[in-house]
Amino acid sequence: MSANKVPVAILGATGAVGARFVQLLHNHPTFQIVALTASDRSEGKRYADAAHWVVEGEMPRMVQDMTLLATDPEAVRRVAPEVRAVFSALPNEIAATAEPAFAQAGMLVFSNASYHRMAPDVPLVIPEVNADHLRLLQHQRQTRGWRGGIVCNTNCTVSGPAITLRPLYDAFGVRRVFCVSLQAISGAGYPGVPSLDITDNILPYIKNEEEKMEAEARKLLGRLDGGAIREADFGLSAHCNRVPVIDGHTVTMSVETERPITPEEAVRVLREFRCDALAGLPTAPECPIIVREEPDRPQPRRDRMAGRPVGGMSVVVGRVRREPLFGDCGIKLVTLAHNTIRGAAGGSVLNAELTWRMGLAEG
Amino acid sequence: MSANKVPVAILGATGAVGARFVQLLHNHPTFQIVALTASDRSEGKRYADAAHWVVEGEMPRMVQDMTLLATDPEAVRRVAPEVRAVFSALPNEIAATAEPAFAQAGMLVFSNASYHRMAPDVPLVIPEVNADHLRLLQHQRQTRGWRGGIVCNTNCTVSGPAITLRPLYDAFGVRRVFCVSLQAISGAGYPGVPSLDITDNILPYIKNEEEKMEAEARKLLGRLDGGAIREADFGLSAHCNRVPVIDGHTVTMSVETERPITPEEAVRVLREFRCDALAGLPTAPECPIIVREEPDRPQPRRDRMAGRPVGGMSVVVGRVRREPLFGDCGIKLVTLAHNTIRGAAGGSVLNAELTWRMGLAEG
Amino acid sequence: MSANKVPVAILGATGAVGARFVQLLHNHPTFQIVALTASDRSEGKRYADAAHWVVEGEMPRMVQDMTLLATDPEAVRRVAPEVRAVFSALPNEIAATAEPAFAQAGMLVFSNASYHRMAPDVPLVIPEVNADHLRLLQHQRQTRGWRGGIVCNTNCTVSGPAITLRPLYDAFGVRRVFCVSLQAISGAGYPGVPSLDITDNILPYIKNEEEKMEAEARKLLGRLDGGAIREADFGLSAHCNRVPVIDGHTVTMSVETERPITPEEAVRVLREFRCDALAGLPTAPECPIIVREEPDRPQPRRDRMAGRPVGGMSVVVGRVRREPLFGDCGIKLVTLAHNTIRGAAGGSVLNAELTWRMGLAEG
Amino acid sequence: MSANKVPVAILGATGAVGARFVQLLHNHPTFQIVALTASDRSEGKRYADAAHWVVEGEMPRMVQDMTLLATDPEAVRRVAPEVRAVFSALPNEIAATAEPAFAQAGMLVFSNASYHRMAPDVPLVIPEVNADHLRLLQHQRQTRGWRGGIVCNTNCTVSGPAITLRPLYDAFGVRRVFCVSLQAISGAGYPGVPSLDITDNILPYIKNEEEKMEAEARKLLGRLDGGAIREADFGLSAHCNRVPVIDGHTVTMSVETERPITPEEAVRVLREFRCDALAGLPTAPECPIIVREEPDRPQPRRDRMAGRPVGGMSVVVGRVRREPLFGDCGIKLVTLAHNTIRGAAGGSVLNAELTWRMGLAEG
Repeated sequence: MSANKVPVAILGATGAVGARFVQLLHNHPTFQIVALTASDRSEGKRYADAAHWVVEGEMPRMVQDMTLLATDPEAVRRVAPEVRAVFSALPNEIAATAEPAFAQAGMLVFSNASYHRMAPDVPLVIPEVNADHLRLLQHQRQTRGWRGGIVCNTNCTVSGPAITLRPLYDAFGVRRVFCVSLQAISGAGYPGVPSLDITDNILPYIKNEEEKMEAEARKLLGRLDGGAIREADFGLSAHCNRVPVIDGHTVTMSVETERPITPEEAVRVLREFRCDALAGLPTAPECPIIVREEPDRPQPRRDRMAGRPVGGMSVVVGRVRREPLFGDCGIKLVTLAHNTIRGAAGGSVLNAELTWRMGLAEG
Repeated sequence: MSANKVPVAILGATGAVGARFVQLLHNHPTFQIVALTASDRSEGKRYADAAHWVVEGEMPRMVQDMTLLATDPEAVRRVAPEVRAVFSALPNEIAATAEPAFAQAGMLVFSNASYHRMAPDVPLVIPEVNADHLRLLQHQRQTRGWRGGIVCNTNCTVSGPAITLRPLYDAFGVRRVFCVSLQAISGAGYPGVPSLDITDNILPYIKNEEEKMEAEARKLLGRLDGGAIREADFGLSAHCNRVPVIDGHTVTMSVETERPITPEEAVRVLREFRCDALAGLPTAPECPIIVREEPDRPQPRRDRMAGRPVGGMSVVVGRVRREPLFGDCGIKLVTLAHNTIRGAAGGSVLNAELTWRMGLAEG
Repeated sequence: MSANKVPVAILGATGAVGARFVQLLHNHPTFQIVALTASDRSEGKRYADAAHWVVEGEMPRMVQDMTLLATDPEAVRRVAPEVRAVFSALPNEIAATAEPAFAQAGMLVFSNASYHRMAPDVPLVIPEVNADHLRLLQHQRQTRGWRGGIVCNTNCTVSGPAITLRPLYDAFGVRRVFCVSLQAISGAGYPGVPSLDITDNILPYIKNEEEKMEAEARKLLGRLDGGAIREADFGLSAHCNRVPVIDGHTVTMSVETERPITPEEAVRVLREFRCDALAGLPTAPECPIIVREEPDRPQPRRDRMAGRPVGGMSVVVGRVRREPLFGDCGIKLVTLAHNTIRGAAGGSVLNAELTWRMGLAEG
Repeated sequence: MSANKVPVAILGATGAVGARFVQLLHNHPTFQIVALTASDRSEGKRYADAAHWVVEGEMPRMVQDMTLLATDPEAVRRVAPEVRAVFSALPNEIAATAEPAFAQAGMLVFSNASYHRMAPDVPLVIPEVNADHLRLLQHQRQTRGWRGGIVCNTNCTVSGPAITLRPLYDAFGVRRVFCVSLQAISGAGYPGVPSLDITDNILPYIKNEEEKMEAEARKLLGRLDGGAIREADFGLSAHCNRVPVIDGHTVTMSVETERPITPEEAVRVLREFRCDALAGLPTAPECPIIVREEPDRPQPRRDRMAGRPVGGMSVVVGRVRREPLFGDCGIKLVTLAHNTIRGAAGGSVLNAELTWRMGLAEG
């Protein structure tokens, strides 16, 4: 192990998001994977024998022979006493108690689970949207008496819309947003969606997804005010659908702004959107938002890996046009984000990189 | 041929919608197929050799050996002088001139093409929505000096939303409707969508489709006033997407009503919706709208053939719930219609049945 | 319940094959469903609440409210003492002990499970292939001291090849058969194949499937000799693949015959193949084998529902041509059978109909 | 343009294989794209406006603005007089006359079209299989009086089996091979296979494909004898199927060898297979054949990009086991090759690299 890298663990490493964490943290310049945990069923097995490697490319040799640990701070500490951060791909019901246990034990938890997202003292962060919310960590440590802490990323479906809304909100204000998602099957994990349900079919419902999108969007675009987040006061309404696509969540949006807007102005602010606080972070995309002019883009298979240096971290927006039902104050567009990179593992890794840069890693 | 049946022809019979016309008119109690036409390339061939039979079941023996005629009133008259109605599955650019030629020659054209839909004297009809618009035919005949006439069905995507809106409009008024479609590949005809474009993918754009939905919805729900249609004064905004589904267009709708509405009331008026003028017509569904209670319905593969006596003629609605962005005056729902039956061939056949019943067949 | 119908139960009724049994036995002229069983997890629930209804059309009203029983002869007898036959869609490990228990309790078990198929005293029957093997039942009852008995249908993949081989074997003899299957996802039941595994993909392996095909084919085409089956002495070798198709197993076959054969002769004997012993049975297809001449048939989506009066009971064969590697004694062809109708539930129902006709229902 | 690179053109650059040529030749160390040609319909357009970019990643900036030329040696010479090699992705009927015209004009044609493959003086080459056949070029130039020449790659489907057979043939001899293919839709080009034909379906027929496989395999494994190829004397029989997979042709093989073989021996010779003549060529894979041990590999989505340094150039073999129908002299296996890389554009690029290394580029 490189002496200079931060040793980290991945919790719940055997599933679809776990595989993405492995992929993104392998050869990472700042972090080094030193432990992997799993459910009781897989504890003690080799990672290569227990994991569902449902991402592109081969499993890195480095992790193949790692022995899966119990998802427990002591088990991790025993094997890797120096671990300072854990990336959680745990199912929600396990995350509920396991994540606080790791935080209590002094580790920073970068979580992909939804359980703690809406807790008032837990930062729910997409760095390009609300980097400053990370400062809630200090408040969280005080209140809870933790040396570590919990930082949540968002629901995978809201990540594209939230990043798209950030520059529009700042430039024009946002009043109402109608979202309809066409979500990839990898969003449901592995084994996830049975092929008998989704072949030649659409599922017009994803449990709790609409509620999450509606609530998280307001917290994400909210304002840090002392030790609390004041939610942004716009409304978002969602219809969520599952479609036969492997990766990449497409969301159509009809946005009502506070102030007049034209498609040309919208394209301009989306294109010019940058996030200086992230410049040079390994997982930060050069362009958070890529706007395409072709009438038929973004398309999930063709655009989901957009972004550099890490493919899948840029959001791709297209079909920016007037929304006739909102008069001068409306636009329609389509936004696409890779759900297990931008909307899950990649988002958490970027959160961790930023936490270190902001000097918030130490309690 | 049965002496009592009305002899009819199918124009452009070799494509996907043509096949549906054959399927629905074969063994029809009122109409009898006596001629099939095609493009120059297929003229003179056997139907079985030229047709793309992309519907379920086998091609009826009765049509297999029919010789394809030119799409020309004289060619049809020569072989079948008694033809009184033609069902048009012609591409738009051919329909532009061919359909008027058939109308001029004294035949009633029940068209699936979009070319003449928005002409002021052409009835654009979904029987459950605006049966009375058929009376425009008399005005059309006078203005144009035709003995025949043109009756259009609607764009396949708007058929589900329009039928769903009819009872809501009558009971609560409608102000604004946000629609997002997830459209089946059969909507693009054959060969249509290349598999390389739609496998593991979504196409977020269908040329002219959004414009058609927005315009046709207002004409459909409009009011016949003398010799003209006064368009309904609500706004509809659409995002249209192509998805990897064979048949069945799913549309999510967020509806703002004039007067307060609850999901329970909406379900009630949708369920109770009937259309007495159609009672007993061979292709009319017993229930125009079927409302499902399960959280994850309608689904295209499982619900597209809903309806009796002709499968695929009922619209299936589900997920009726509050639309929070419209306060007391909003609901959200999902509607599904079979695009080549309800939204194309079946709609035209029902238009023809109703035209006969209303005594409008003769000029 | 009709006084004249034979009361039957379905074991393991909530899965994919269970749903097919319900579909085929509902409104059956001879049998009447009076009980449905399930695993412990679903026992006591309404069928409509526990079943995965993954077949076309709606669940019959008749079964929706039936309460699921434990898969136990006494539980069934308690509710429906007259039950004389049970149709088993049980998983293999349950079938191992449950099916003998029902047979012991005096019921005839028509099983879709593989556990007992190769037992020497259990008839493994496709009526068109080896109806006379049913007579093994008498021997089975004697040996085991049962009043009931077990009759197995075959592995779903071997059903198409076995029916196709029957007339070829009789007319030309068969020496070697190379089979490669392209199997539908419904063959794995529900939830079965994860969509993440089969979207834009092929799985070139199905556990135990090749072994079953190779063994069962020889027993099916074997000869009943006293109380035993003498296996047919040809070799069959199989490669089994899973493909993204909902229903319908396609199998390519290269057949080496004992005596010279031409494609024309093969087509003739396949077309003329009939099975008089089955004439008039409700589920027996008019034509066991339908031979198509088009170069690109059979195709699963277009041909899987072939057959009358029950769609899906005919095997469809196409592309009959010379097999150059076998000189004068070889043909190549493609055969397709609906895996959950012909290859599963429909096969068992036909076995039951034939058992009754042959007077073997009573021990 | 680098002074040291060989200037090349791509003929028929706008389709699926054309896009692969662009992808593989962009940043190539030896070759530099200086011209792109297309059909009359696209001549004069920008490449970015006319191309169907159906491969992963973005179109290289370098080619986006190139103007498409007519597929004519003079048109190419006019713009790029130094062109010495052309890569042909032409349709067969154009290749028939266009390729000889380029060869006559002094250019080496590395062709992906089938038209000239079986001509006695045209080398049909997969470098790992029959590199020495390239020497036919000298004979071809003499006979035809050309300064340039034509080198063909093989049918995409035969490439995996041929590479797999090479080491088996050398070690054990090969008598008969039964192949069944499951071919990706990209093999049919763009627009290619209509989605209405392949969704939830298999097409059990690909025109002329079986004949090509059977003939090309024998030429590939044949022996160069003076100015002619003596075909290898084994038999290959193929069933070709189209399946809903984007890229990657899977082929099951049952191989009868001349001498006894065990699966372990087969795995060993497949794994040890190397091709020294190619060492260090930019497109040559480190391992021509990768053997996987898992029971369910190779899978097209997961294995098609195997190989280094150019993904998609290795063949992946799995499920090596006994073929019971061939006694001691038989094995069964599954082989997978990327059809538009290994089986098309990548194969031609490797042919060109080898031609240069062997000093055959100059007539």
